[in-house]
Amino acid sequence: MLFHVRMDVHIPKDIPSETAERIKADEKAYFQSLQQSGKWRHIWRVAGQYSNISIFDVESNEELHQLLMSLPLFPYMHIEVMALCRHPSSLHADDR
Amino acid sequence: MLFHVRMDVHIPKDIPSETAERIKADEKAYFQSLQQSGKWRHIWRVAGQYSNISIFDVESNEELHQLLMSLPLFPYMHIEVMALCRHPSSLHADDR
Amino acid sequence: MLFHVRMDVHIPKDIPSETAERIKADEKAYFQSLQQSGKWRHIWRVAGQYSNISIFDVESNEELHQLLMSLPLFPYMHIEVMALCRHPSSLHADDR
Amino acid sequence: MLFHVRMDVHIPKDIPSETAERIKADEKAYFQSLQQSGKWRHIWRVAGQYSNISIFDVESNEELHQLLMSLPLFPYMHIEVMALCRHPSSLHADDR
Amino acid sequence: MLFHVRMDVHIPKDIPSETAERIKADEKAYFQSLQQSGKWRHIWRVAGQYSNISIFDVESNEELHQLLMSLPLFPYMHIEVMALCRHPSSLHADDR
Amino acid sequence: MLFHVRMDVHIPKDIPSETAERIKADEKAYFQSLQQSGKWRHIWRVAGQYSNISIFDVESNEELHQLLMSLPLFPYMHIEVMALCRHPSSLHADDR
Amino acid sequence: MLFHVRMDVHIPKDIPSETAERIKADEKAYFQSLQQSGKWRHIWRVAGQYSNISIFDVESNEELHQLLMSLPLFPYMHIEVMALCRHPSSLHADDR
Amino acid sequence: MLFHVRMDVHIPKDIPSETAERIKADEKAYFQSLQQSGKWRHIWRVAGQYSNISIFDVESNEELHQLLMSLPLFPYMHIEVMALCRHPSSLHADDR
Amino acid sequence: MLFHVRMDVHIPKDIPSETAERIKADEKAYFQSLQQSGKWRHIWRVAGQYSNISIFDVESNEELHQLLMSLPLFPYMHIEVMALCRHPSSLHADDR
Amino acid sequence: MLFHVRMDVHIPKDIPSETAERIKADEKAYFQSLQQSGKWRHIWRVAGQYSNISIFDVESNEELHQLLMSLPLFPYMHIEVMALCRHPSSLHADDR
Repeated sequence: MLFHVRMDVHIPKDIPSETAERIKADEKAYFQSLQQSGKWRHIWRVAGQYSNISIFDVESNEELHQLLMSLPLFPYMHIEVMALCRHPSSLHADDR
Repeated sequence: MLFHVRMDVHIPKDIPSETAERIKADEKAYFQSLQQSGKWRHIWRVAGQYSNISIFDVESNEELHQLLMSLPLFPYMHIEVMALCRHPSSLHADDR
Repeated sequence: MLFHVRMDVHIPKDIPSETAERIKADEKAYFQSLQQSGKWRHIWRVAGQYSNISIFDVESNEELHQLLMSLPLFPYMHIEVMALCRHPSSLHADDR
Repeated sequence: MLFHVRMDVHIPKDIPSETAERIKADEKAYFQSLQQSGKWRHIWRVAGQYSNISIFDVESNEELHQLLMSLPLFPYMHIEVMALCRHPSSLHADDR
Repeated sequence: MLFHVRMDVHIPKDIPSETAERIKADEKAYFQSLQQSGKWRHIWRVAGQYSNISIFDVESNEELHQLLMSLPLFPYMHIEVMALCRHPSSLHADDR
Repeated sequence: MLFHVRMDVHIPKDIPSETAERIKADEKAYFQSLQQSGKWRHIWRVAGQYSNISIFDVESNEELHQLLMSLPLFPYMHIEVMALCRHPSSLHADDR
Repeated sequence: MLFHVRMDVHIPKDIPSETAERIKADEKAYFQSLQQSGKWRHIWRVAGQYSNISIFDVESNEELHQLLMSLPLFPYMHIEVMALCRHPSSLHADDR
Repeated sequence: MLFHVRMDVHIPKDIPSETAERIKADEKAYFQSLQQSGKWRHIWRVAGQYSNISIFDVESNEELHQLLMSLPLFPYMHIEVMALCRHPSSLHADDR
Repeated sequence: MLFHVRMDVHIPKDIPSETAERIKADEKAYFQSLQQSGKWRHIWRVAGQYSNISIFDVESNEELHQLLMSLPLFPYMHIEVMALCRHPSSLHADDR
Repeated sequence: MLFHVRMDVHIPKDIPSETAERIKADEKAYFQSLQQSGKWRHIWRVAGQYSNISIFDVESNEELHQLLMSLPLFPYMHIEVMALCRHPSSLHADDR
């Protein structure tokens, strides 16, 4: 089941840079593990902004929520979620 | 080059249904030709709305604009475009 | 899986009242069938508005979308969908 | 009488974590007491956000306000309230 | 129990003026009956707009909704409802 | 002359609580003096929010502005003002 | 007493042009009478829009409302009203 | 003097196509005359929308307003105007 | 040439009051010099807010920008600018 | 390929002024190098605001993103990006 997720990142300026770098590194590792698992199917950077558009492929709302809440950057992000469905006109069976 | 495009469709109620069906059929054919060509890489239906989120893979803004303006449903749509880039953390080389 | 759905109904004034009444009757019948099936778990009227807040219990985004698109009043509604999860503090196992 | 309440939680980053944990624990205890009493009828987590949608069953606006103002997390929340009524089409007498 | 209600009136230009006048007359009669009953406690015109701010004194959300839905001008109004409580600092016991 | 005033209070978390309490006490005393004078005709708490809706009865915009600027909580409030008039349908001569 | 009034004019396309011209002529005559009386102290066109910013000098909200409701173009306008006061730093006694 | 102007075009669907084509042709001719004169310095199409971003080089607000009001498509456009200045860091003397 | 400027002032609470008073005094002196010169033609306080509506009479966008950027309070203000023109119906020749 | 970019700058008040000046100097140097290269084709100051409207001429979304992310002021800016195309009516071949 697919979800469209927009993440806008706002890291406060007064966080020590090492702390920020560590959180970002944890975020990247966590993200790549999910990408390999297929849960985090797509991620694109929004040009000009510290934001991304992602497509998650999960079994349930609950799973999506747990994945997002576990993001090391979660406390510093505004997240918008939209439930997606396969488009009836799409030629791809599951739109990979 | 990838673009995130949201399309919200509002077909006026007073359009004869045959006309509406013909336009939708033309739209589907046109869409599928672009999907096969790879230009229209992804399309998903927004759950609960006559809207879709699409990802276009084009050579330029100009090409994107021409593709969108040629949509049979274009006169009945509100369209928002966002330029995307490959995310630096993504494991996929081109995020297919 | 639960979804929060807000529906704002705008029936154009120039629709013949018999047509409007028939559509509303079809809507009520369709709604009650879904309520009995448990798919449409909750519905409440927003005080002062021709709007409702509903909670759907479905297997997937796709099922939700099909249920909503099949609403006789769908063409006359603005719909907003939010994916919900069980709240970690809730005492109810599945929050019935 | 039912009220739809949306709560968005924003705990400042500079609050000592023990303090934050204590407040959250108080919040959970207070919430569960109200859930058991039936006042706080439903609570769902909004997927991807530190927010919830709740349905309160209270005798008056005043009671609702007192319950909400007494939330330990109240100072850190943005709250939106909507008055609900039983939907005329609902099969459930009181929509439990 | 008090509710703050804002009503913005938009009567379509293509309604025959006699019809519009009749609806407005019905609205005035209905309003004055509620004002006399105390249900419609206050009404003020918003300067420069075909809008009013009203304070309703009702027993429940349900009663408020029925009163508002019965307004002859209801189909031509956008209505916003806010639940009010007595202010703790007010000297007036019930704020008449 | 009546004015509708909405006040949303945001007291910064880092103000010492004694200071906050003193300001609130001053605010209450100042408010009650204006309520007794009839200037501050109505005040209601917005259910679920640290906000109020008030109706002021003043001689001029200037007087309203001076009254509001003198509120001890003024620096911590967002205020919206709307000019009101007596509603032509109201049975109350001056809508007391 | 001064009020800032923004007027955005939207004359429906399907109004016969003679009717529109007559209404505009009435509007101009009515406006100029108020300008001469000093009630309508200032009027400026917003560059690029069929809108104006006006400053009214009236005795009360009621008078402002009557003047605005009597505008021949009133049914085709969206109007926003803001109460103004003399600025404490202004050198002009009454800011003419 | 430079002004940033956004124009969103909404031509009603019920306008006869010949009329629409004639208006568009007049618009193009008028535009090109202004482009040649240097008044209309830049125009770009917003990708995916029937909108443009333009930069006007005029002597005054008045001149800008007259140019815009004279656009054959003016009645069918929403226009936003922003006053621009030369950027202090720009290497181009007048940013041609 | 006239510009409508709205200024909303937000002085951070943690600025020492003497500093704030000095900046305000500088602002008043600077303002009065511009008022005397005719550049700052009108200023009104928005009732209930630390905001003003001003009308500037300047030779160009550039001059307006320099005047506004030189305001001692500029760093603490949100400013919105609208280009104005003389209204065609105005009786005053110079109400430019 | 052209992009319309709006940049709103918000430098926190608590940054040491030397640091702020250094960042601004770096920004100016970086900007001028891009202006000379033709990448940063246009930049205009928005009158009355610490904001600019810029037109970038780049090969891809990716290049635009890299250029923007490398701005020394990037952490202190809100940026909005719009993809532009050549307008079909423009007389300039590439709209220089």
